[in-house]
This record gives sequence, structure tokens and C-alpha cells, in this order.
Amino acid sequence: MIPNSTVEVWLREDVGHHDVTNDVPGETTGRLVATESGVAAGLDAARAVFEYFDASVTESAAAGDELDAGQTALEVEGPAEDVLRAERVAVNVAGHASGVATKTREAVEAACEVDGGSGVRVAGTRKTTPGLRGVEKRAIAAGGGDTHRLDLSHMVMVKDNHIAERGLEPAVERFRERASFATKIEVEVDDPGDAPRAARAGADIVLLDNMTPEATARAVELVNDAAAELGREVRTEASGGITVETVPDYAATGVDIVSMGCLTHSAPALDYSFRTG
Amino acid sequence: MIPNSTVEVWLREDVGHHDVTNDVPGETTGRLVATESGVAAGLDAARAVFEYFDASVTESAAAGDELDAGQTALEVEGPAEDVLRAERVAVNVAGHASGVATKTREAVEAACEVDGGSGVRVAGTRKTTPGLRGVEKRAIAAGGGDTHRLDLSHMVMVKDNHIAERGLEPAVERFRERASFATKIEVEVDDPGDAPRAARAGADIVLLDNMTPEATARAVELVNDAAAELGREVRTEASGGITVETVPDYAATGVDIVSMGCLTHSAPALDYSFRTG
Amino acid sequence: MIPNSTVEVWLREDVGHHDVTNDVPGETTGRLVATESGVAAGLDAARAVFEYFDASVTESAAAGDELDAGQTALEVEGPAEDVLRAERVAVNVAGHASGVATKTREAVEAACEVDGGSGVRVAGTRKTTPGLRGVEKRAIAAGGGDTHRLDLSHMVMVKDNHIAERGLEPAVERFRERASFATKIEVEVDDPGDAPRAARAGADIVLLDNMTPEATARAVELVNDAAAELGREVRTEASGGITVETVPDYAATGVDIVSMGCLTHSAPALDYSFRTG
Amino acid sequence: MIPNSTVEVWLREDVGHHDVTNDVPGETTGRLVATESGVAAGLDAARAVFEYFDASVTESAAAGDELDAGQTALEVEGPAEDVLRAERVAVNVAGHASGVATKTREAVEAACEVDGGSGVRVAGTRKTTPGLRGVEKRAIAAGGGDTHRLDLSHMVMVKDNHIAERGLEPAVERFRERASFATKIEVEVDDPGDAPRAARAGADIVLLDNMTPEATARAVELVNDAAAELGREVRTEASGGITVETVPDYAATGVDIVSMGCLTHSAPALDYSFRTG
Amino acid sequence: MIPNSTVEVWLREDVGHHDVTNDVPGETTGRLVATESGVAAGLDAARAVFEYFDASVTESAAAGDELDAGQTALEVEGPAEDVLRAERVAVNVAGHASGVATKTREAVEAACEVDGGSGVRVAGTRKTTPGLRGVEKRAIAAGGGDTHRLDLSHMVMVKDNHIAERGLEPAVERFRERASFATKIEVEVDDPGDAPRAARAGADIVLLDNMTPEATARAVELVNDAAAELGREVRTEASGGITVETVPDYAATGVDIVSMGCLTHSAPALDYSFRTG
Amino acid sequence: MIPNSTVEVWLREDVGHHDVTNDVPGETTGRLVATESGVAAGLDAARAVFEYFDASVTESAAAGDELDAGQTALEVEGPAEDVLRAERVAVNVAGHASGVATKTREAVEAACEVDGGSGVRVAGTRKTTPGLRGVEKRAIAAGGGDTHRLDLSHMVMVKDNHIAERGLEPAVERFRERASFATKIEVEVDDPGDAPRAARAGADIVLLDNMTPEATARAVELVNDAAAELGREVRTEASGGITVETVPDYAATGVDIVSMGCLTHSAPALDYSFRTG
Repeated sequence: MIPNSTVEVWLREDVGHHDVTNDVPGETTGRLVATESGVAAGLDAARAVFEYFDASVTESAAAGDELDAGQTALEVEGPAEDVLRAERVAVNVAGHASGVATKTREAVEAACEVDGGSGVRVAGTRKTTPGLRGVEKRAIAAGGGDTHRLDLSHMVMVKDNHIAERGLEPAVERFRERASFATKIEVEVDDPGDAPRAARAGADIVLLDNMTPEATARAVELVNDAAAELGREVRTEASGGITVETVPDYAATGVDIVSMGCLTHSAPALDYSFRTG
Repeated sequence: MIPNSTVEVWLREDVGHHDVTNDVPGETTGRLVATESGVAAGLDAARAVFEYFDASVTESAAAGDELDAGQTALEVEGPAEDVLRAERVAVNVAGHASGVATKTREAVEAACEVDGGSGVRVAGTRKTTPGLRGVEKRAIAAGGGDTHRLDLSHMVMVKDNHIAERGLEPAVERFRERASFATKIEVEVDDPGDAPRAARAGADIVLLDNMTPEATARAVELVNDAAAELGREVRTEASGGITVETVPDYAATGVDIVSMGCLTHSAPALDYSFRTG
Repeated sequence: MIPNSTVEVWLREDVGHHDVTNDVPGETTGRLVATESGVAAGLDAARAVFEYFDASVTESAAAGDELDAGQTALEVEGPAEDVLRAERVAVNVAGHASGVATKTREAVEAACEVDGGSGVRVAGTRKTTPGLRGVEKRAIAAGGGDTHRLDLSHMVMVKDNHIAERGLEPAVERFRERASFATKIEVEVDDPGDAPRAARAGADIVLLDNMTPEATARAVELVNDAAAELGREVRTEASGGITVETVPDYAATGVDIVSMGCLTHSAPALDYSFRTG
Repeated sequence: MIPNSTVEVWLREDVGHHDVTNDVPGETTGRLVATESGVAAGLDAARAVFEYFDASVTESAAAGDELDAGQTALEVEGPAEDVLRAERVAVNVAGHASGVATKTREAVEAACEVDGGSGVRVAGTRKTTPGLRGVEKRAIAAGGGDTHRLDLSHMVMVKDNHIAERGLEPAVERFRERASFATKIEVEVDDPGDAPRAARAGADIVLLDNMTPEATARAVELVNDAAAELGREVRTEASGGITVETVPDYAATGVDIVSMGCLTHSAPALDYSFRTG
Repeated sequence: MIPNSTVEVWLREDVGHHDVTNDVPGETTGRLVATESGVAAGLDAARAVFEYFDASVTESAAAGDELDAGQTALEVEGPAEDVLRAERVAVNVAGHASGVATKTREAVEAACEVDGGSGVRVAGTRKTTPGLRGVEKRAIAAGGGDTHRLDLSHMVMVKDNHIAERGLEPAVERFRERASFATKIEVEVDDPGDAPRAARAGADIVLLDNMTPEATARAVELVNDAAAELGREVRTEASGGITVETVPDYAATGVDIVSMGCLTHSAPALDYSFRTG
Repeated sequence: MIPNSTVEVWLREDVGHHDVTNDVPGETTGRLVATESGVAAGLDAARAVFEYFDASVTESAAAGDELDAGQTALEVEGPAEDVLRAERVAVNVAGHASGVATKTREAVEAACEVDGGSGVRVAGTRKTTPGLRGVEKRAIAAGGGDTHRLDLSHMVMVKDNHIAERGLEPAVERFRERASFATKIEVEVDDPGDAPRAARAGADIVLLDNMTPEATARAVELVNDAAAELGREVRTEASGGITVETVPDYAATGVDIVSMGCLTHSAPALDYSFRTG
């Protein structure tokens, strides 16, 4: 869902009070063309931008489609004035989201090569661009990644400050009581030795934070042993400064999820150009 | 100006309906620490995020300050619950803006080395992240760059479709009549030979779009000659896919402004960490 | 989090364009007094209402506190004009939320008596009052209930139309792939015989919809057997027209969760009165 | 009028950032069916919810229509994705408003039986659910009730604190001067003996607050006598904890209006179910 | 009530994305000075503008105060940056509202001279500046005028198209049934002969639209006779292109209210200047 | 661009919670008719008002068209209820904007008669009605005027307080560095002798504030001499209390721009009437 009020903010900040250049008469068509290859995302948002005015989208790639350089991602028609006024914002949001999707796919592919199909998931984080949480999370999904938790209310994360305040087991216990049955609980540890403790305390997922691949592998093993012993599923996640370059090393550890803030906060935009007529 | 409604959108999308983890009692202090060196920006936005709740910023670096790795950019105090709930969004906006500022400074420095102090300006474009126009434009300024036009109403840009429709001179003439005396007029050309025509037609700035450095240098010379002849100032701008790597080649052409979309659409975030207590 | 824009909507709709009666000079104090016993909730929202103007809350019961008839829930001081203008809206939101919390506690107590402490959870649903999702979910928590999923993105619910379209197992499989690891999957069945199928297909929770207590008990047993066999936890939820009167019958079935739309859509308000001076 | 921004808030809080379950392809139809008998209201709001997305309402009961159990209140068609995403919110708002209308009609019928057709009006109050003032007031009208004042600016209410501060007559006098000719003035009294004083002071309506039916009857008589003497119309209103059970006792007193907060703050929702295909 | 979101819109449209001129360091004081005599209004809105940033109002004239040329209406102190950024918007809103108040007072005084103290009211209309309904209505009150109805829901106006559709008496009857007891009913007639019909049909006020003063006087007499006969109060209002010049002629007719659209749609601003330091 | 949220605010403030008079069945047509001659403006905003509901504009005059008394400016069709509910707000915004355009054209014509075609521009200021910056600026353009700067970020204005703080030349120098190449710099002086200093310091425009026509003429001459000497264009603007009566005196001085706050803050509305059927 792309709220109309969000689209309005995007357009208002770009148009200003009196744009004298876009009062072009007549109707036109336009195409959003990828000028480099990548993964399509954000086209629902681009559509909403055109439709805020009176332009209509007549054709669109789907989120997750691989685009070749030169390929048209979206076609639009309508009053020239409306098409032209929407163009830059539509390109900006599609380029940003497709950049996130493209970088996600690179990370997913890098991870999978090493992982040998064992199913490691590459996930985003809450390190998203303010105002674009939904757009970026859906772009991660388009790129084949896992959105990870969408907001603070989606999944409980027991962090170092909670553990410092109460101790690991009581902190997990506390949130287990307070959180809905619908909500998973993840516990962050930065020492491999604490990982099985987190599992035994009731974590659904254990977050292995800022560990080397070696430490990660050790922690994964310890958690898996604990899970077997507990007779329930406990997943493991590696996080902390992981890049497309280092993601294979983490994927190789047997961890279930590798999460990467860079997918959203540092993905270069995919280059689109908008061509009318 | 950071509108309260914008800050609210940022926070609401991150908090969700029922976050059970941040009801920490008591007061706390916190510091936003740069974990790598870079240029501070977006700290006014981070401040607004903390102050939306009841936390107060007690110390802050200024926009444009060089931060070393490990340096504190902003200090905050207040109810632990408020500080913790604001933290992630504050880091996200500061990291994003500081990333833009840092990349801008890199580009400015790359340009200036070659330029020999002749004063080439490195500028942004309208290729900004939707919803963050103001934050990113001010981050460019913090990085020593030039914001370029802030929105469609700020400066008239006569583009290829206007010229195709009316011819170069009539198009410029038309916008000269329609635009305020307060508004400059820039004319986009993609052939060096058209550049002096644009100057003679009345452009305040001639945009040399997607030219090689060589073509740019030739166009700059032609515009400068025309300007001397006309007895008025006409500036030149190079644009189109220019990167931190290629900016020196354009700076060396004598052009007045080099504008780069990548400053805003493809700058990796500056890494900040938030430390409480 | 109570967004300022939400509070503004509440106040604006009550004040109108020109209220001539509330320009009372001077300062005043006021108390929100429960005129019947119940469970406190929504006082954070009431506080936000007073603070939108210039009144300050000096004392407040906590969410979940049992209030006796005549007990003060919240004290406020400030300009008389501000206190009086905020009063009605503050009472309305506190009364509504406390009504939800009170009804929730009744249901929890009715369920627990029968359940014998085995830990059945009484949960809400998505049948909330439009615009008050967060307020009501937090009121359920205040009453000792479980919020259930907060929105469509929080937990996947595989419903009859999904199953009709694809079949139970493929539908679950599909959403398992599409949903984040952070997201649980619940599968709705209306026949006890389908319940263990849902468990085997990968449901984290099986929703037993519109079944009698007898059918529910049978389904719970089947799911528990399947779970034991699968070696993983599968929870069961009873739902569909359950009331405070019938909740004990469902609690007695061994089901893990009983969810009740009436907690939010049909809870009478708790009666508060506001007393100044 | 149902503002688009209000509908957007309702939908956004229910959908969240990434709902993976509603991307159902193709078109569908759907029907909002009352599963118990009651009075239709809020269908304009339900329509606005569907139309926020791309679904169209093809048929709708009118506000105030009596619905039998099983009767369709509204039919919709459109993209399955849009219909399904809007469904829950549409049901919630229609159920809530229809619950208010149904309870209002019960109260009106209870009052009228006793009243013998003399025309007592059953009215709402300002005790509405925050954010739903208009929806609930129109639901009261749909149920045959009287909306009472819509906001603080609609009618002047001279309350105990005004009278305590200035005395009854000066308070009425003061508001008579300050209020528009378009605005009626109602004066609240809690002692029957003060009722004719209020009439003589200039009240258009005298509010008999928290009186027994006997005291109410006495006050009504006193006001009617004063009105006859004054040669102008003065109405009387009974208020304060009146329920569907007690409304006949008040209706029998000859009072013109009986107002009941419970119509809006404690009406159980009317149960609707949404059926597709 | 001046909603924060309204103030934000006012400021955002004036500041833009990057104002380089108002980063003045230090604290300052400022005074809003009337440079011509007039009636103060809109100072609550000006206050809200300063307080949106971090400036504080230390002294303010009251709405309705007569200001001499050179008199200070409001004093403010705070960070120079905040004071300067708010200044223009504060002056604009105060000037606009005070212009409305001043023109209202002129009209009131012109009417009263002729009227000889008989109490004719000078009222506004719904012809207000979009977005400023509340500000302008309160400015009319500040000028000694009557706000008239605040919105379509405040008072029923039976207009020519209603009468054309149903006939005068049935139209009034219909709205009498549909409107709350809290709502007055005004009936618009453009022929003096219809005026007493409107009174007999149940109008609380008869609007004499676009009549000459003579026809107005005749209609007033007819309504007054009908009212005496009916034994209830019926008021009369003259409207339609009445100006400060012609208001005495209407005031002399014995009409109760003279309403004037020009008070809001054509009042010149009162000139204020803002002086710092 | 007329944001939907703005239109919603305009309508919401006029409709209120429960308007019983506009539920007229069936379809209707309507015409917005100028009842006096003037210049059309704001019809795009009026269109947006009708289209917020389900009415369609079938015909419209263009911004800047001269309207004769009795001429139709805009035709609309749609559900009677929607047309009637939108009517007043549409008239209000069109009347306000057309009043600004009409007053602007008067000023332009007054200036041009004297100026003899030398091209003086009549411009607005930032003294606009809060919330209507864009509407009024476009209305000035419709009337043949110059919008002047649209907001604080559009053009730098070096004002007395900047000069007091730093001195004229350093202040200009400072803003030259800080402002974008896209932004012009205007310097305000109130003494003719300072005008050429401002030109030499680098002003693009020199604002001659509150000078008599004689002083203005002298300052213009000094600036023109300086500009010739500098070999670049420097414009001059006269401002400060200039009215339609005095604009010819300023136009005769040779100044390039005459700016007038009264165009926006004190223009009487153009009278429109709305006729249905």
C-alpha cells in the first residue's frame, strides 16, 4: 500500500509553488527504461505517482523481474503536463527501490553460491531510509531477500541493554510474557557461548552480532545442538557490517539468516531514464 | 526546517502499534558516535526525532563538521523509553544525510585538486530520495557542494522536449517572459555547437548534458566567448553520469558547475552507532 | 506511541471553529475519576490530549491497574482553558480504552477459572475500531489479554479463500516462502479433521474457526498429536463469536488461545468523570 | 463527508508495511452481509474504504434501513487484491456504526412506546469514540435519534463550572452576547428548582442533569410553566446515565429530549460478514 | 484552536527546502507593531507560529483590542533563527485576521450609529478564505461582529433550490425533522411576501436575500407580525452585497442581523511591521 | 499543483460533521458565473474542489482570461449532492484568486501606461495569505504580474539585519558563497547612496525599500551606472507601501520591478455566483 499522502509529499517537494515549464498541451506517452540491468522494484510506487495526477500506467514489469539494460519497465499515458510533472519523482522512487532490489539479489546470489542450496536467507534490517520503510522492505522481497522484522512491534528483539538490565533468561522470560503469541522473539548475543543460553531461554531466533565467520559457525553449532536437545526449532542469524563481499563467508557457516543493513542504507540507485513520445 | 509531521511519519513506521521492548524505566543519556570518518549532516533531523518524544539534545556537531571514527556527533538525554524509541530513526536519518555529505566532500575535493582553486562547484540534482529533498539538499551544502535547484519552481530548466516543441530561441524567450525576475534560466544542450546559441538566447546557465570532457571543454570555451561578446555572465554546467572518479576530468574543462545525481541517489550511509549510558 | 496528528484530529473534531465557552481565565487542576471499578488503559492517550494543549499530567495510574469506583486515574494541571478544552476527549479515549481493558480482564478471569492455570491466552482480533488499532491493542494487553496480530503484515493468516484457490498444503508452502523468518504462519480451518493437516503443512498456529467446544477439543487433540509427531511446537486458537459467557467452555478444551472480537468491537466504555478544582 | 485522509489512516493501520497474503490475481465481487438484524449505518464509510483502492460499490442499503439477519447491505466488485485488502476495515466501520444505529433505534422505540407519540427525541452526546465523531453522529441519525450538538462550537452549553464562576443569570447573559444568533444556548442544572431560573435567564434548552424521573418530571413542569409565562419556546433535556432500560421512565416525564452517552460509547457492534465470489 | 498541522503548512510553504539567510546565531526579541490603527485579531495564530519553532510570546494584546498606529501587539523572544523564520508568516496571519476584525468593527459602528442601539448584529458569512474559516470567524467576533453559522452543519439554511424542489413549507418541515434540536433553521426568501410564510413554516430566522432596504423593512414588519401572532421569536437577516457604505440603510430597517461577505473576502490587511532587537 | 490534502482541509472546514441539507438526489449541472468583470484565476483549485467529490468540470476559462460580468468561468456536472457540497468552497477559492489576478492586472495596466512599454514588472511579495502561497502566486501570474520569490529558499534577500550584523559587502559575500548558483541575490537598501554599493558588492537585484519616487529614480540611475561600469546586469526593484494609485509614479522612475504586498493581502474578491440546472 502506497498511501496517497506519501505520494503527495513526494510530489509537492519536487514541484514547488509555480512551475512554469510543464504546462505542455496535449497527451503523451512515456516509458521508464532501465539503462543498466537490475531487478525491478518500486514500480507500484511509480504508478501511484503518475496516478496522483491524471496519467495511467498501461504496462508494468512486476516486482522482482530482471531488467536488461534498455528494457522498458513501465509505460504510461496521459496529459503531457501530468506525465512530465510526475516523471522525476517516479524515476527517483523506482530507481531507489530497484537499487535495493538489485543489491539484494547480488547478496542472495553470492550467499547461495556458497551455501549450496541449503537455504540461507539474506535479510534486511531496520536501517532503512526514513519515510521509505515499506517501499524498501518490499524491494528486498523483490530482490529475493527476507524483509526481516518490519517494525519494532513485529518481532521482539532482546538486546544487550535488556540483558544488562535483567540478565538473559529473565529478559527473555519477561518478553515471552508480554509479547503476543503471534510474535517471535529473537535474542541478540555477541559471544558464541551465550548463543545456546539464548536458545534455552526461549529464543525463536538467536542473533549472532558482530562475530567473525568462525565464531558464527561455532555459535550456530552450539545453537543447533541446543535446539536438538530442546526438541524445537531455533534459528540463527548473523549480523553486523556484512557486505556483498563477505556474505559468502557467513553463508558458509550454516547460519539460517544473514542480515545486511547495506541493502537499504547503501544501495546505489538503479539508473532509469524516462522517454516520452 | 524539519516538519513535525515528517518526523512523525518516520517514527510511526518504525514503532508500530505495540512495541513491548522499550518501556525501560528511568532516565538515560546517549551518544551518536561515528564509527568511520566522514562529514556530519542530518543532525538537525536527528535532533527533531529525539525531541518528538521527550528527549533533549545537549550537544551536537554542526552540519559540515569533519567527524573522525569514534567521534561523538550528538548527545542526548531523557526518559530511557523515549531515547531508545527514537534511536534507530535518528541513526538512520543522520547516517543517510552524513553519507550524502561525505560523498559530496569527496567529489568536491576530487574536483578541486584538478581545478586548482578556480572555483568549480560540485552540485546535486533533483535525483533525490522521495521525501528527503530538504534533508539531502542541506546535506550537499554541508559537504561543501551546491544544492542546485531545489524544486521545479526554483529555476527554469529548458529541456530537449521544450526545444523540440518550439525551437531553442523561442523556448528560452517564452520562459523568460513567464518566469519571475527572481528565477534563473538554464538551457540544456547536448551538442557543443548549441551551447553558445543557448547563451545568446538568454540562458543564465548552459547545461552541457552527457558530453565527454573534451566536448565539454569545447562547449565551455564557446559559451565563454559568447558571454564576453554579450557583455554578461553566462555559466556552464556539466552533467550526466559523472562520478567521483570522473569529476576531475570535468573540473579540468573550466566548466563552472559539475552536477552529480550520485551524490544523493547512490551515496552509502555513514555508519553511526548509538551508545547509551 | 500516540501520534500528535491523531490527537489533533480528536481535538479538532470536538472543538470546532469557535467555542465561546472555554475561555476561562487562570490555572486549574483536574482529576479523571473512575465512577465504577475497572481496569485502567488509554491514560497515555489521555495524557497526550492534555499535553497537546499546555496542560501537564502530574500523576497517572499505570495501564492495567485495577481502579475502584471513585478512584482517581490521572491528575492534570494547567491553564483552565486548556484543561477544559481537552477534558471531554481525554475522558472519551480513556473510557473507551479502559472499557476494552476491563472486558478483557473479565474474559481472562472467566477463562482462567476453568483453565486451572494451564495458561490459555485470551486474545483480541483485527475487529478493532477504525483509527484506534494501537490504542485498543494496548488496552487488551493492559487487561491481561494477548494482542494477537497487530496488522496484516505482522503474522500470515492462511484463510479459506487461499485454501480454496490453491489447496491447504500449497497455500501454506507458498506463504512460508514469501513470509519473513520473523513472521509466524497461522492456518484457519473450520473442520477438526483439517487441523492436523494444517499442522503438518507447517502452521505455527492452527485457527479453529467457528467450532463448538467439543469440536475444538477434538481438533486440539489432533493438532497436539501431530505436533508431538512432528517434534515441534504447534499452537491452537479458537475463534468465532466467543463471548465472556462462552469463553470458559473454550478454555476448557485445552486450546492455547481464545480470541474474541467483542473485546474491541463491543466493550462498553468504563465510566470516568472529570472533576476540576 | 468521509475525508480521504481518515480512510487512509484506517487502512494503513490495518495493512502494515508488507502484507504477503493479499496479492490475489483477478477480479472478484463481494457482499457485506448482516449476520444479525439491525439498522444500517456507516455504509458510506465502508464505500469510501473500498474506493480508496480500486474497488467499486455496485449496490448499497441506505443509512437507516432495517437489515434482517442474512441480508446483504453492500455489494462491491474490483481487483481481488483491493477488495480483500479493504474488507476488514470496511466491516469494522460498518459494524461499529450500525451498532450505534441499532442501539439508537432500540432506545427510540423504548422511548416512543411510553411516550405515546408525543415526540420525545432520543439524542446522543459528545461521548463519542475519538476520531469517529461524524460517523457516529450520522449513525445516531440513521437510527432515528437526534445527533445533539456536533461539537463545542455548535451549541453553547452553560455548565456547572460556568455557573459556579459567575452565577446562572450572568453566565447565560455572557454567552448570549458572545454566541452567534445561529447558536442555541442550553443551560445545565442539577436541581429542579433551578430549571425555571435557567429558562428565565434565556436558555433555549434546559438540561436536567442526573435527576430521577420524578425530579425530571417536576423540572419539566416548572420549565413549561416558565416558558408559557415568557411566551417563548424552552425545551427540556434529561441526561446522565440513562440506558435503554431506563429511557422509558424519562420519556414518560414529558421531557423533550433524552440524551444517552451509551448510544456511542457502549453500543455493541452489529455483526457483519464479508463474502466473496 | 490553531492546529499544529495548519501552522506547519503555513511555515513550510514560506521556508522551502534550504533557506540560507536565517541561520543567525544568538537570541533576539521582536515586536509585532501595528503601523496603522485597527482591531487586533489572529494573535493566537501568530503566537502558534512562533511557538512552532522555539520562540516564546511574552506579551500579547487580546483579540478585539483597539490598536493605535505604532502600538505593539505582541512581543516575542527566542533564538534569532526561530524568531526570524517565523516572522513573515506571523505578520501575514495577524495582518489578515486584524484586517477582518477592523473591517467588521467599521461595519458594526456604521450600523450602530443608525440603529440607535437597538442591537442589530453585523454578521459574517460562509464566504471565507479557504483554510482560514476558524481564524476569520474568530476575527469577526474580535471586531464585534457575529460569526453567523460556522459550517454547513451548524445551522440549517433552507435555500431556493430546496424550495424549488419541494415547496417552502414541506422543505422546512423536512429539515425540522432531520435537524437536531440543537440546530436552528433559517429560511432564505427573496420576496418580502414569502417572509412571513417562512416564519409560519417554522423558520427560526428568515433570510431576506438581495432585497432593497425598503423591501427589507417591509419584510421585517411582516415577519414580526407573524411572530407576534405565532407567539414565538423569529429573527430576520438581511444579506446580499451589503457593504460598509450600505449597512446603515439595512440597519435602519429593524432587521436583526445584517450579514456581509465582504468582511472576510474583501477586507484589506491591517499593516503590521515586525521589529527585532 | 493543488494538493488533495489542501482541498480536503478546505472542504472539511465548511461541511462539518452532519450536513442535513445537501442530500439532494440525482444529477445536476452548474456554472460558476462572474457577476462583475475581472481576470480569471484559481479555477484549477475550484476544479480540484469539485473533483474531490465526484463532480466533473466540463469547461473552464484559462487562468488570465478576462471575464465580463455575466460570463461563465467554469461548468461542472455530477451528482447534485457533490456539486452542491463543493460549490461554496469552489466559489470562495476562485473569487479570492481572481480578485488577486484582477488587482494585479489593474496595477500592471496602471504601471504600463506611464512606463511607455519599457517593460517594468509589477510583482507580488511574501505577504500572502497563509495556506495560499501557491494559489496567490499563480493568480499574480494570471494577472500579468511577476510572482517574485516564491519562498525563502527561492532567492536570497540580504536585509537590514544582515547588513547591520556584518556590513553590506561581507553580508553579500557570505550569501554568495552559501547560496546555490541557481539562486539570485537581492540586496535591500533604504538609502539611494547604498544602492550602487549593493550592485558592486554583487547583488543581482537591488531592492529600493520605502523610498519616494524621486529617491527611487536617483537610486536607479546610480545602480545603472554601476552596472554599466561592472559590465553585468543589475536590476532594481521598488517596494514599500506602493498601491495601484502610486504605482505609476514608481513605474516612471525607470525601475525594473515594482512589488506590491497589497496584490495579495488586500485584494477584494472577484464576485462569482454559482448557478445550478
